[in-house]
This record gives sequence, C-alpha cells and structure tokens, in this order.
Amino acid sequence: MIAIQDTYPDDVAHCFGCGRLNPHGHQIKTYLQGDLTVTEFTPQPHHTAIPGFVYGGLIASLIDCHSTGAAAIYRMRADHKEVGSEPAPRYVTAHLEVDFLAPTPLGPVRLVGTAREITDRKVVVDTDFFAGDDVTARGSAVLVRMPTSMISG
Amino acid sequence: MIAIQDTYPDDVAHCFGCGRLNPHGHQIKTYLQGDLTVTEFTPQPHHTAIPGFVYGGLIASLIDCHSTGAAAIYRMRADHKEVGSEPAPRYVTAHLEVDFLAPTPLGPVRLVGTAREITDRKVVVDTDFFAGDDVTARGSAVLVRMPTSMISG
Repeated sequence: MIAIQDTYPDDVAHCFGCGRLNPHGHQIKTYLQGDLTVTEFTPQPHHTAIPGFVYGGLIASLIDCHSTGAAAIYRMRADHKEVGSEPAPRYVTAHLEVDFLAPTPLGPVRLVGTAREITDRKVVVDTDFFAGDDVTARGSAVLVRMPTSMISG
Repeated sequence: MIAIQDTYPDDVAHCFGCGRLNPHGHQIKTYLQGDLTVTEFTPQPHHTAIPGFVYGGLIASLIDCHSTGAAAIYRMRADHKEVGSEPAPRYVTAHLEVDFLAPTPLGPVRLVGTAREITDRKVVVDTDFFAGDDVTARGSAVLVRMPTSMISG
C-alpha cells in the first residue's frame, strides 16, 4: 500500500503535519482501507495537555492533515485513479471542526475518515479519532484544492 | 502585565501549546487588553504548510490554547479577580472550529479573542488570527472547566 503523502509533488510536500520532506514534522501517512481512510500516529512524550494526556492542538492538527490526505484519496477514487498512479491532488482546509469527547491517553492513536461529500469544488471528511477502542474526538473538515497562488514550484 | 499561563497551577502547566513547564512546547502567553485577549507568537521556520506559509495545524493549535487561556481570563474577570491574584482556573476545549480564510505568510502572528458567552458551565471564545493587518483565520472554541479526573496533583 502507498500512503497518499508519499505521492505529494515535491514542491508541496513540506507540511509540518504531513510532508515527507519536512524533517521536523509529524510525517503522517494515510491509507485507503475499503471506504475508510486511516492514519496511525504515536505522539511524543512531550505532546501533553496535562501529564498523561495528548494535547488537543495535536489532535486538531492530526485531524486536519489526515483530512487533506483523505480528500486527495477520495478525489482520486472518484476519478477512478489508484493512489500512486500519479501525483496526488493537494487540498487545503477551508473549515475544521473538532469535538473533544474525552481525554486522550498518551499513546498510539488512530484516525479513521469517511467521505461525507465529494464534489469538484470540495471534499468533506469526517474523522473518528481513536485511542485504543475509544473514540476520544471527532472531526469534520471541508477541504478545497490548494490555490495555485500557494504553489511556488 | 501577567500572562494567564504564568499563573496556571504547576500540575496543569505542561501543555505543549501553553504550559510554561513544557520545555518542548510553544509556551504561548495570553494577556487581557481592555475587553480583548491577545496572544502573539512567532512560528518556527519549519512550521510550514507549504514553503512560506504557516501550517494550518499550528494555527488551529494556537487558537485552541489561546482560547483556553482567554476562558480563564474572562472567568476571572467575571468574578472580579485580577490575573495573578490567585492560580488561574484551567479550561479544556470541548469544541473547536477554525475557518481558514487565506494563506498565512510565515512570520509573527497575533491572536485576538473576545468572549461570546461566559457562564458557570462554559466560556465561548471567538478569535481573529492575524498575520500583520490581515485576518487569515477565525476561530471559535467552547471551553469547559478541566475535569478533576484529569488533574493528578
């Protein structure tokens, strides 16, 4: 399986959350599994809200970048293209919502996304954020194609 | 002026975004200025979305932690208490929304918050996120008092 982020064009692969070319960043990897998009991540010990629990900003960040990757995956699938068959379309977030349902214990987390809407103009991705078997947060993001004004390459 | 984060009790001052005791984190500082709550921050060069622009996850993270600080400030003010007169009440985010309005050029940013609602149960904070004179994002957060189950001290 190929992660969508590994197919981002080089000039748009420096995102702190998901860019494979950002050595300081999280470098998340998102995969299509059936109809779901899945990202797994292990926070660092210092990514705390209070000791023992994951910082909400990281949760929001992971949902954000997971959603941009998921949008690219769902767009390609709607166009009958396989991930890896060509450079991924790049999306940016127009709107992000996160409900923090319960404290997230520090440890591996898993984000599971579904596509609520796929149009030419946007993709809407809903995400369940898991710590073990518990959904500790839910996210929803509206993703639009990256404006060409942002692309320098 | 005293930043609200500098009055967080030691056992709840390790947040990656706003804890003064987290040496790896952002250590943001939020101040009351008139009716506004203000946080200034300079992203690191690697906090990029694509080269030259700030990563949306950081924007969401800053709005999140700014809002928890602002909630404490507004709660204290409603109780006729000055920041610094006693340890700050700690809030956590129940719901976070961010509208990304325009790309945020990499450079200093300023968050300006207002209180939309202050009740015993929650505080709702709206935030304008500035790059220079431009509002590049808007946030809204619902903050509730930190559950005692999260406090180990």
